[in-house]
Amino acid sequence: MLDTAPNGKVTTLLALLDEALSANDPDRAVELFQTDCYWRDLVAFTWNIKTMEGKDQVRDMLAARLADTRPSNWRIADGEDATEADGIVESWIQFDTAVARGFGHLRLKDGRIWTLLTTMAELKGFEEPLGFDRPMGARHGVDPTRKTWKEERDAEAAELGISRQPYCVIIGGGQGGIGLAARLRQLGVPTLIIEKNERPGDSWRKRYKSLCLHDPVWYDHLPYLPFPPNWPVFAPKDKIGDWLEMYAKVMELNYWGSTVCKRASYDEAKQEWTVVVERDCQEITLTPKQLVLATGMSAKPNMPNFEGMDLFKGDQHHSSQHPGPDAYKGKKAVVIGSNNSAHDICAALWEAGADVTMVQRSSTHVVKSDSLMELGLSALYSEQAVKNGITTAKADLIFASLPYKILHEFQIPVYNAIRERDADFYRRLEAAGFMLDYGDDDSGLFMKYLRRGSGYYIDVGACDLIADGRIKLKSNVGLTRLTEHSVILSDGTELPADLVVYATGYGSMNGFAADLISQDVADKVGKVWGLGSNTTKDPGPWEGEQRNMWKPTQQDGLWFHGGNLHQSRHYSQFLALQLKARMEGVPTLVYGRQAVHHLN
Amino acid sequence: MLDTAPNGKVTTLLALLDEALSANDPDRAVELFQTDCYWRDLVAFTWNIKTMEGKDQVRDMLAARLADTRPSNWRIADGEDATEADGIVESWIQFDTAVARGFGHLRLKDGRIWTLLTTMAELKGFEEPLGFDRPMGARHGVDPTRKTWKEERDAEAAELGISRQPYCVIIGGGQGGIGLAARLRQLGVPTLIIEKNERPGDSWRKRYKSLCLHDPVWYDHLPYLPFPPNWPVFAPKDKIGDWLEMYAKVMELNYWGSTVCKRASYDEAKQEWTVVVERDCQEITLTPKQLVLATGMSAKPNMPNFEGMDLFKGDQHHSSQHPGPDAYKGKKAVVIGSNNSAHDICAALWEAGADVTMVQRSSTHVVKSDSLMELGLSALYSEQAVKNGITTAKADLIFASLPYKILHEFQIPVYNAIRERDADFYRRLEAAGFMLDYGDDDSGLFMKYLRRGSGYYIDVGACDLIADGRIKLKSNVGLTRLTEHSVILSDGTELPADLVVYATGYGSMNGFAADLISQDVADKVGKVWGLGSNTTKDPGPWEGEQRNMWKPTQQDGLWFHGGNLHQSRHYSQFLALQLKARMEGVPTLVYGRQAVHHLN
Repeated sequence: MLDTAPNGKVTTLLALLDEALSANDPDRAVELFQTDCYWRDLVAFTWNIKTMEGKDQVRDMLAARLADTRPSNWRIADGEDATEADGIVESWIQFDTAVARGFGHLRLKDGRIWTLLTTMAELKGFEEPLGFDRPMGARHGVDPTRKTWKEERDAEAAELGISRQPYCVIIGGGQGGIGLAARLRQLGVPTLIIEKNERPGDSWRKRYKSLCLHDPVWYDHLPYLPFPPNWPVFAPKDKIGDWLEMYAKVMELNYWGSTVCKRASYDEAKQEWTVVVERDCQEITLTPKQLVLATGMSAKPNMPNFEGMDLFKGDQHHSSQHPGPDAYKGKKAVVIGSNNSAHDICAALWEAGADVTMVQRSSTHVVKSDSLMELGLSALYSEQAVKNGITTAKADLIFASLPYKILHEFQIPVYNAIRERDADFYRRLEAAGFMLDYGDDDSGLFMKYLRRGSGYYIDVGACDLIADGRIKLKSNVGLTRLTEHSVILSDGTELPADLVVYATGYGSMNGFAADLISQDVADKVGKVWGLGSNTTKDPGPWEGEQRNMWKPTQQDGLWFHGGNLHQSRHYSQFLALQLKARMEGVPTLVYGRQAVHHLN
Repeated sequence: MLDTAPNGKVTTLLALLDEALSANDPDRAVELFQTDCYWRDLVAFTWNIKTMEGKDQVRDMLAARLADTRPSNWRIADGEDATEADGIVESWIQFDTAVARGFGHLRLKDGRIWTLLTTMAELKGFEEPLGFDRPMGARHGVDPTRKTWKEERDAEAAELGISRQPYCVIIGGGQGGIGLAARLRQLGVPTLIIEKNERPGDSWRKRYKSLCLHDPVWYDHLPYLPFPPNWPVFAPKDKIGDWLEMYAKVMELNYWGSTVCKRASYDEAKQEWTVVVERDCQEITLTPKQLVLATGMSAKPNMPNFEGMDLFKGDQHHSSQHPGPDAYKGKKAVVIGSNNSAHDICAALWEAGADVTMVQRSSTHVVKSDSLMELGLSALYSEQAVKNGITTAKADLIFASLPYKILHEFQIPVYNAIRERDADFYRRLEAAGFMLDYGDDDSGLFMKYLRRGSGYYIDVGACDLIADGRIKLKSNVGLTRLTEHSVILSDGTELPADLVVYATGYGSMNGFAADLISQDVADKVGKVWGLGSNTTKDPGPWEGEQRNMWKPTQQDGLWFHGGNLHQSRHYSQFLALQLKARMEGVPTLVYGRQAVHHLN
């Protein structure tokens, strides 16, 4: 008799899948999928981050990768039960491949696979020393040649990068580089972080003083060591700075602060990088096999070039250089831009007693922080979610299981609900002249972030100041030029100014690669970030994954790492496994390496 | 119909208990207890740490405390089920009192209470901001008077102890003081830690270089922020040092390093301490209401005074001052003592190529580390226990639920099993002349620790060196005197020596109080530590709890905190609640304050 309980349905399907895959029969396997199916693979099958959309793409991938991957032992994950709701059967699954153990997620519709997520959990033979397998620390017994932990750590710090080359160099020691380095240390990959600031956390400490995380704590955990239960929902920047500093210390990362990376080049023959850094006024040449750019999406400020900037007698700086409002009480401030930083800076300047005008050049997506938390994030990332058993790892995987192709369909209703809930708020903003949008297809903040990484403000208070005119607003205008003591806008308005802040965003990570390596390599790699959705600032063709992030690029040995804290945490697992496999000589044939359509 | 399932039995009993207590009827309540019953209360009923043994003590306590305590709402704890095995029904329970919420543990035998543990979980109205109630961090909205988190932290650090007095001063910034201060910060009790070393963790860093924790990681967590899953089983001292330093930082503790506490006195009229400390070569007077001595059981080295110590030309120091073996290769070393430090130091000296003799003056209890972990600790503190759902908090409470009066009965079989398992090991040690014991009643290591805090070695390798003579052993002798280049033992043996290490243990915490405050106050408070078991170094009468630890002493406003990492973590909760209640003016009538029978 056919088992109609959810576990039975999943077990039956997995048995058929196992048979088809073991028989090396992609056609049979594909019959188990819906027509509108999605198979998202994080490294387990493709050595890539890749979504196969539809049966043809699934078949092609299997035809190319089955023989190598040799998947087996498909099963409902240990300790889990499948569930069924609204006609969809869902289950956590586990499987093995020839070289790895996998974990995944499955959704069945009408008995066939609608979405399948396969991820590499660990490489066989290179499991992380965690839990039952954690290190002993003390080495019992006696050994005249023993070194203490401290002697070994001190020796490593003295040698790595000097007399012994790291396998991997990470440029950028913010949360992205730090989390990835922690994973690599666990995997035994000798890694050195290069960071221009003195201490871990300085990239937060040096930002404008009112900055707090815009994402809540449940979304922000780093790998291995979650924030404690007394950690604030929205951590202030200096507190995050302290956390990153201690994290780098207790995770025993090799971290060169106050070190500037000057140039890097790749020797294709030796398959090795030459990376020149300046540390303590001394040039040091590193020769890692792998180079990770983890400078973040905020590494390269977009500093505009307006007529008259050289004449202006007041203070002017990019938002990334803004020191905070303390010096501007009673002064006239003009802030160019209308995204997160612009709002935060305007509000802090107003609080400090400055006369503030925001210049909004184009429409902005605004969401109130509490609405975003309650309607947008709480199912996966909230105290209630934790209480419901949605661990951080599960939340990350559930999110990863939703194919980018249809993610906006899940997001649009959320933002429709937010628009309804906060209708009065939005009305007041528009009445003040503020130009609002909700994304090209009304899919809201997270899609904007994934597509273009900009164009929004998570409201924590500035909107009220704009709505009632305490922060003055000039919208639908640009900046034409500056005079000695004013800015001239495109509608002819002259605004007297003692301070101009250019909250004009950041350049592509590709631009950083051009500066560091060469324009040729940057062009070869192409645009970093974006899905190819063919919406504003995210030109097509459709890529289905974030371009060049956490996965092989067209340049061997060059990787991009970053994103928000959630992405850095989650994808660092897969980037670390890709690097470890290469170090150990595990074959890593990349399936479906992305083509380059845009240079930046 | 009588419900015979475990939940039903517990629910029935709790209903009867609730009725009797609500009726303020101790006699009726006592009828629900076994004749050989134990009620251990951590602060909830007694504002003390107290075990009532037998019905009479239970009745007396209830008669004294019921009216104030007004317990109610007894129930099986949320999400828990009672269990039954070997005729014992066990259950986690919850209850309320007039001022607090309580959590506890119950064992029923023949339908009556055999053991009852009641603990205070939180004071009503003063709940900790954790989880659902964690702080927001960012304060949304706008506020011209707002200070950033960093500005507030900097201001607090600048003011506390200078222009604003802490409510509580903790002397000693090791793991004990740090964990307690973290709890107090959570409870909003202004607290200052005074520590003579420069940085948190230095008390570990400065010990002999081979030192690792002797207790495994699962036993060692600090409050709120558990070690990550990659933390070693036995952490090396410098790694623990780093952890404590970062913990103090991220928990935002007010920590004055490089500060020496010179003297303290209590003004009974003002109910306030005057504590004089020296910081940056400057005397500062603090006037807290509460003074906690958290200098640990290793604060006051027992430095012996032997004839000829002034003549000796080699190096000699107490084990606490031993720098490690590096300078003693090829040298002759004599180590006086045979407990943990003595063994560790002997082994490290041997490894470094010294000629080492251990002088064992009296018998020592030895347990192999892996046997202790597997047979002694694993049910509560191990990776398997965690997997079985025994969280650290539950493990602590289960341990706390076993009355000290009968704890040895649970321990004796464990050590009998260890003696059988390691019979050959013990035989070899005795054959080498080593004097072994297993505690006065064969109850082993943990009872020795609770009773006297000394007299044992957890073997991590030194025993093999002793058994086969690589570490030389002189046992059942004492040190009589030193000459310029040798030590003379009580049996007339002369041992040439370049180094003498006095691993002679530590003085009572009471002695530290005498030095800091006065001999009068130290005498008034009496002996610190020990149960009154009338075994070696733990004179009676029976106290039933550790003397003066974590609970009110005979000196108002003076508290002792410490113990191993498990005890510091667990009892800091109850000490913190006692201090918070006093700060908030919650009535804290102490029931059964211990009498003083021994001065030190």
